[in-house]
Amino acid sequence: MPAINGDQYIDRIDRLKTNVWVDGNPVEGKISEHPAFKGVMKSQGRLYDFQLEEAFKHEMTYQSPLTGKQVGMSYLQPKTIEDLVSRRTMIQNWAKLSNGMMGRSPDYMNTVIMAFASSVDLLNGKENCFPENVTKFYEYAREHDVSITHTFIDPQVDRSHYHFEHAEEPIAAKVIERNDEGIVIKGAKVLATQGGITDEILVLSAAGLDGKDKGFSFSIPSNSKGLKFICRESFVGGESAFDHPLSSRFEEMDTIVVFDSVLVPWERVFYFNNSEISNTFMANSSFSAFSMHQVVARRIVKTEFILGIVQSIIETINIGGYQHVQEKAAEIIVALETMKALLFKAEMEARADEWGYMRPDQLTLQIASNLFPKMYPRFTEIIQLLGASGLMTIPTGTSFQSGIKKDLEQYLQGASRKAEDRMKIFRLAWDISMSSFGARETLYERFFFGDPIRLASQLYSSYDLKPYVNCVDSYLNIDPLS
Amino acid sequence: MPAINGDQYIDRIDRLKTNVWVDGNPVEGKISEHPAFKGVMKSQGRLYDFQLEEAFKHEMTYQSPLTGKQVGMSYLQPKTIEDLVSRRTMIQNWAKLSNGMMGRSPDYMNTVIMAFASSVDLLNGKENCFPENVTKFYEYAREHDVSITHTFIDPQVDRSHYHFEHAEEPIAAKVIERNDEGIVIKGAKVLATQGGITDEILVLSAAGLDGKDKGFSFSIPSNSKGLKFICRESFVGGESAFDHPLSSRFEEMDTIVVFDSVLVPWERVFYFNNSEISNTFMANSSFSAFSMHQVVARRIVKTEFILGIVQSIIETINIGGYQHVQEKAAEIIVALETMKALLFKAEMEARADEWGYMRPDQLTLQIASNLFPKMYPRFTEIIQLLGASGLMTIPTGTSFQSGIKKDLEQYLQGASRKAEDRMKIFRLAWDISMSSFGARETLYERFFFGDPIRLASQLYSSYDLKPYVNCVDSYLNIDPLS
Amino acid sequence: MPAINGDQYIDRIDRLKTNVWVDGNPVEGKISEHPAFKGVMKSQGRLYDFQLEEAFKHEMTYQSPLTGKQVGMSYLQPKTIEDLVSRRTMIQNWAKLSNGMMGRSPDYMNTVIMAFASSVDLLNGKENCFPENVTKFYEYAREHDVSITHTFIDPQVDRSHYHFEHAEEPIAAKVIERNDEGIVIKGAKVLATQGGITDEILVLSAAGLDGKDKGFSFSIPSNSKGLKFICRESFVGGESAFDHPLSSRFEEMDTIVVFDSVLVPWERVFYFNNSEISNTFMANSSFSAFSMHQVVARRIVKTEFILGIVQSIIETINIGGYQHVQEKAAEIIVALETMKALLFKAEMEARADEWGYMRPDQLTLQIASNLFPKMYPRFTEIIQLLGASGLMTIPTGTSFQSGIKKDLEQYLQGASRKAEDRMKIFRLAWDISMSSFGARETLYERFFFGDPIRLASQLYSSYDLKPYVNCVDSYLNIDPLS
Amino acid sequence: MPAINGDQYIDRIDRLKTNVWVDGNPVEGKISEHPAFKGVMKSQGRLYDFQLEEAFKHEMTYQSPLTGKQVGMSYLQPKTIEDLVSRRTMIQNWAKLSNGMMGRSPDYMNTVIMAFASSVDLLNGKENCFPENVTKFYEYAREHDVSITHTFIDPQVDRSHYHFEHAEEPIAAKVIERNDEGIVIKGAKVLATQGGITDEILVLSAAGLDGKDKGFSFSIPSNSKGLKFICRESFVGGESAFDHPLSSRFEEMDTIVVFDSVLVPWERVFYFNNSEISNTFMANSSFSAFSMHQVVARRIVKTEFILGIVQSIIETINIGGYQHVQEKAAEIIVALETMKALLFKAEMEARADEWGYMRPDQLTLQIASNLFPKMYPRFTEIIQLLGASGLMTIPTGTSFQSGIKKDLEQYLQGASRKAEDRMKIFRLAWDISMSSFGARETLYERFFFGDPIRLASQLYSSYDLKPYVNCVDSYLNIDPLS
Repeated sequence: MPAINGDQYIDRIDRLKTNVWVDGNPVEGKISEHPAFKGVMKSQGRLYDFQLEEAFKHEMTYQSPLTGKQVGMSYLQPKTIEDLVSRRTMIQNWAKLSNGMMGRSPDYMNTVIMAFASSVDLLNGKENCFPENVTKFYEYAREHDVSITHTFIDPQVDRSHYHFEHAEEPIAAKVIERNDEGIVIKGAKVLATQGGITDEILVLSAAGLDGKDKGFSFSIPSNSKGLKFICRESFVGGESAFDHPLSSRFEEMDTIVVFDSVLVPWERVFYFNNSEISNTFMANSSFSAFSMHQVVARRIVKTEFILGIVQSIIETINIGGYQHVQEKAAEIIVALETMKALLFKAEMEARADEWGYMRPDQLTLQIASNLFPKMYPRFTEIIQLLGASGLMTIPTGTSFQSGIKKDLEQYLQGASRKAEDRMKIFRLAWDISMSSFGARETLYERFFFGDPIRLASQLYSSYDLKPYVNCVDSYLNIDPLS
Repeated sequence: MPAINGDQYIDRIDRLKTNVWVDGNPVEGKISEHPAFKGVMKSQGRLYDFQLEEAFKHEMTYQSPLTGKQVGMSYLQPKTIEDLVSRRTMIQNWAKLSNGMMGRSPDYMNTVIMAFASSVDLLNGKENCFPENVTKFYEYAREHDVSITHTFIDPQVDRSHYHFEHAEEPIAAKVIERNDEGIVIKGAKVLATQGGITDEILVLSAAGLDGKDKGFSFSIPSNSKGLKFICRESFVGGESAFDHPLSSRFEEMDTIVVFDSVLVPWERVFYFNNSEISNTFMANSSFSAFSMHQVVARRIVKTEFILGIVQSIIETINIGGYQHVQEKAAEIIVALETMKALLFKAEMEARADEWGYMRPDQLTLQIASNLFPKMYPRFTEIIQLLGASGLMTIPTGTSFQSGIKKDLEQYLQGASRKAEDRMKIFRLAWDISMSSFGARETLYERFFFGDPIRLASQLYSSYDLKPYVNCVDSYLNIDPLS
Repeated sequence: MPAINGDQYIDRIDRLKTNVWVDGNPVEGKISEHPAFKGVMKSQGRLYDFQLEEAFKHEMTYQSPLTGKQVGMSYLQPKTIEDLVSRRTMIQNWAKLSNGMMGRSPDYMNTVIMAFASSVDLLNGKENCFPENVTKFYEYAREHDVSITHTFIDPQVDRSHYHFEHAEEPIAAKVIERNDEGIVIKGAKVLATQGGITDEILVLSAAGLDGKDKGFSFSIPSNSKGLKFICRESFVGGESAFDHPLSSRFEEMDTIVVFDSVLVPWERVFYFNNSEISNTFMANSSFSAFSMHQVVARRIVKTEFILGIVQSIIETINIGGYQHVQEKAAEIIVALETMKALLFKAEMEARADEWGYMRPDQLTLQIASNLFPKMYPRFTEIIQLLGASGLMTIPTGTSFQSGIKKDLEQYLQGASRKAEDRMKIFRLAWDISMSSFGARETLYERFFFGDPIRLASQLYSSYDLKPYVNCVDSYLNIDPLS
Repeated sequence: MPAINGDQYIDRIDRLKTNVWVDGNPVEGKISEHPAFKGVMKSQGRLYDFQLEEAFKHEMTYQSPLTGKQVGMSYLQPKTIEDLVSRRTMIQNWAKLSNGMMGRSPDYMNTVIMAFASSVDLLNGKENCFPENVTKFYEYAREHDVSITHTFIDPQVDRSHYHFEHAEEPIAAKVIERNDEGIVIKGAKVLATQGGITDEILVLSAAGLDGKDKGFSFSIPSNSKGLKFICRESFVGGESAFDHPLSSRFEEMDTIVVFDSVLVPWERVFYFNNSEISNTFMANSSFSAFSMHQVVARRIVKTEFILGIVQSIIETINIGGYQHVQEKAAEIIVALETMKALLFKAEMEARADEWGYMRPDQLTLQIASNLFPKMYPRFTEIIQLLGASGLMTIPTGTSFQSGIKKDLEQYLQGASRKAEDRMKIFRLAWDISMSSFGARETLYERFFFGDPIRLASQLYSSYDLKPYVNCVDSYLNIDPLS
């Protein structure tokens, strides 16, 4: 089973019967029919269907080097700039199907696994490291189009500088035992997006471990014994695409992952009990370069969608003549084209790493990753400022089929749109900027790669400033004009 | 029936059987039991109850000059600064019961009616003006503690500069007939907040009429024949105060108001067919001064609540040691104290108008009204930046009563709070900054007094700049030092 | 010699023959005739003249409780709110003479000395403290209208967190000896504004001393033996008031103060070798409350002047019809009225301290002090954005008396001004926002009370947040609606 | 005389004896020895010298297609992307010699003339257009390395929307006569930077002419009869490179250009009396694409210099450990890399225009041109915020050679620098962010391509938004999930 279709995805997940809790109840029956997951699983299914469509198959899949079958393009280990461009085409094709709303479309995690496998030599010969397991897992995932989520953040108990956990019972997930079969994990990790609706979950420690906790990395099936996914409140507004054009389709859910003495079999352990590797593997691997490439490509599609919404509002109520409206739309244009330039440069200036894989320029992507968390909230602010009272005048679709149909048609018409079309646009604008779903998207973009202040510190620390200081030095020491 | 209690309010509204449409269906049965209105009507009821509580009665009511009975303090026509302070005490007492979340607690509209009545002499002897009707309506409202909403914005069809409606069928509400009984209105007005859950609705034309439309102002019972309230989607997240601590209580609803040939009896017409009056009455009356006084007082209470939430987050996850966290909290402190200073000065520098009513200083309140729409969205941004992933880790209250109770208690604990208390705080933070309800509050504060850019233009146009220009002039013409 | 006039001031300073270095040369001859000091000393002289003018004497002076003679109002120890208002009137009268450009008009330091004297009991009975010297110095200063500057910042060598000086030769000024006559100081302090053109210099340690350095506070005459003032480059653009309407008059100069084994006689030592007192006296005294009162009052006058300049530009080139111009001017109006409200509240809510002196509300002034450093740079940015190319088209005054006079009159005319008047306005706008003098004013306002980030931290740390947290707590624990 | 050296430039300009007025006096004698021009002419001379240096000649010149001699690379009409890269290398080589401070290094105007010549076919067969004159002038300039300035803005008399000049005497320069020899011009244009120190001046009408004024374009020698350059005040701080490391070298001067019945001979008229051409030639030519390419390339060098200064400050006083300092430096890094990505993309996506010249992507450069005017003022703000009091503690170089040398060496040392080196850095930081020269640089960057608000409007108006609106449309019309 190489590249799969939607039904295969849905069927496989339903059969797992993963332990997922929503609003105090375990999900029973098919998870794909549960109101909290129905829409997003269908949307995810559509992505899988799309990759097999005749017209797009060549862009969405490639021939497996192992089996010769067509596998998902997101698994491709790029060796040329053309490969990178192929990857980006695939990413943006998929992103267009969700307008960039699905932060965890399958290409994201596939890319992560591909990056791990491409940097696996870092683990060679290191204590408690199993590079062969990484490679095997990557091949397994590729050949079966396995869907994956991941989790690496510890619960947010105390975020002060020098806090280290010293509870008796683990809070953050820890190895509590090793035995013949594998290692045993107890504790929790937070915020596995799509937790419970993927085949597998990749679990790893974030960098910055203290002495006691030695770190680990592994992947296990979502239905592993003792594994539990606890959902936040669902932000699906309802099933109607008229009323909730986004949340009815793309609400991915975020989950707390509880490990109740979960056994991770040895063949699935990538490394453990090696804090040096745990603290450095992510940073030294191509994880950042490839994952940022996926994220930036997706964000561009999302920004294009935002720009389309903004211009639709402008046209609908005919406000394009105001200078301040033009300025606000121009802000989004500037943001979009800036992101596009950064992605372009990152690809064109890609360099092969020591293992021959073509990494997009990481610094340039880091710039994009510093910028976007500040851009996106402003986008939603602009939508609010332009939509104004129109974003409060939003009766539901049912209303348009009821006794007040005529009233709505008369009183909600726009300058260039009939009432119903106008309402679709404003409800979309509302769903992206003002619904619980939209606000969660904003938070998600703010923090995708971590705290914005930390991102800035990292950029400053890693950037080579010496040439510029030298340039000032030599300027100050040139002969005066004489 | 002077100052009423909650049951009286609810009972009276239920008996009106106003024509209210929610999600394509007319409300049937008691509106106070409808899920979209239940919470807010109970909260509004609590306000009425509160005014009769022995401990607060003296702050919340005063003796009617007409009947000697206790009537709501919001009806008081202030003649001294002490009166203004009494009014503010009443406003903030009520605001504290909703943490400032109810933009249309009864004192708002009571204040508006009081301001109209206090400026009624502007209508004396003017064509098609009925000052005596204003006075009578004010007294009627005061003596019966009538709840009121208002509406004055025309539907947002085309907002370009020189657009004037020329549809055959009216879109914006218009007088289509006058007869012995009164005037007849056809068309719509938008955004009556609390539309359908008040006794009366005050309808008036916004300033800036063109030649054809001559303007009007009147008040009619919500259940007038031909009057219809069309609701937007409800933002009540649910009934649980744990899960939706704000929307379960304070979702006021916004409505489109449709006039299907509604007869306004002569005794309820304040003015009509007089565009000069219609364009100037609001501006020349004490409407701005008194309504801004109410709004600023309420917004201060809301800001205090925000500050409490922010500090609760900081303490819960122990992030108070970070300089950037301190800076963000300090921003809110600065905003709060600035608003307090402006309100204080506006009261202390109040001046009696030509009819002897003590108006708070309008300019100073205008400053506050220019500032707050920029402050409030930043508050919610700060909550998001500090709450971070904690705002996505929000299982429902039901979860705490279920089989995963122990997991939640262990993994969601905060540095200084048990998991359940921590969850209450984060759900509150989420409800104010990220739920559909919270986002609507943000939009509401952005646009309370209109488009922020227009507010700035008005301020510039009305401010006396001459003294400062003169000061520059005379400086430029002093003798040089010699 | 109680309240003095300008000649007395200038004469006294000239006679001191203080050791002042400008551009590598010691000032010789009368300092009041040196190009770097001529303008500002004349301007300062005008302030002294003004206080004796018949029309303003009653506002600018009061009767000394000691001698019955008229002494400067800035020495008044306020015991009532009326006293505070009198002080503010005096401050703003003087500020208007320099449009708020002189950060160190005499009232600033007079206020500081008055505050010290009013809190002197804090030194009673403390080791190495001499409260009687403070009192005597205050009386001496008041009765002789002594001009003073101060210095307390250590040279900016290394500003990292845990840096403490360990040089063999002192860098930061230190007590290197105590003997019968007094204490001996060696090292430097930075940034005595007006250093060298005042009678006295108050020297003190900033808070935050480490173990070794024990702190001190004293005042000595500017011409004390071993004392040296090293000036930065002068920002006087020239003598012409047409060309440099501000810098020709108000360039106060900033100096490094070098102590080359300077003896401070015992009667002038206020405290030394007591790090507890040194770290707390400023904070516990009324220094902050009274100095912020002076500074905020002056900044309001400065803001009014900025607003006058902005509106003069707008009128001159007729750009008042643009919405974005209105918005920018409105920003300044909002800032001005906000500052006025904060000052007003601080005065009205003043409370007597434990010694009976009426302190304006410190918190409210702190808010103003947090706001202004962000406002002021924006003011100058607005001037640049509105003035645009007009700020580069600025020929000198001499040009208007030359062979190109007619060209200038024709080509530099404004919509509402003749060329010469227009040029005066634009040169003034340039001098406040773009000359070296103007830029230094901006830096000065940014850092008047220290680093803006530190100001925010202090505000957060000192503000009582408990009531707001409690309010959230009790809200979360009220009974649900039922 | 193809590519010239510095002496040739200086000598040629000196010989022109152009009519230049400074501070009310005409320049007499050699202009290259006048204090206002000495430094910048020497710096410009160095640029010319540099292009002939053996090591750089191949990057700075190319073989003339006409004469086979080496001519300046800035005249190259690019036909390939490699040509564009060559042009950029030349631009940045020169820019590094002034750290990007010379907005009008010769490559700027050479590029403009090259762009005109490359688009000259637009004038073919049009009334009153002389394309052959453009071509001849371009070749003349290229083969003689002619230095040029330009001017096109009308005096800023009244900038309201609908103002058109109706003075009897022309204010804005106009054609007042045509005769056998040519056209005669009377009136003024503003802001020729480097006016008076170039061989030629290109004069043209800005777009947006009303009916009466028909527009023109021509180039004439700076010493043409009746032509006068009126300087603003000079911002040369002095001759010392220690004290004024930038203004002593790079103060380019801005001038008002007065045409006192200046005859433009026919062979130098490019077009006149054709408002259609006048309103469209600039926009349709490659002017924008090529001039923005030059400007963006220069601005990148300037930003690198700023970054070097910022990091030098950070190291000197050892503040790199503070998170807010890291954030501020990171802001500049983000800005720099963003500009670099935009330039890179503009080059890589260049397309040949209809005449075969390779235009860099104009939209992408427009984005950079919208961004930089907001970035640059923030850079100077960051320098002020980090430099703090250090930017006021700036004695002159002479001081370091005087009796206070030892004091300065002791008290002005930095954590990682000796006092004198530290002072060089801080004086440089001051000169770029706080001197009159630095402030003029800021204004210059704010307005290089015009009012930032107009730039945003232009971007909005010219950007193709349809694809994004269509994408929203089709999304709203897809089948619901089912």
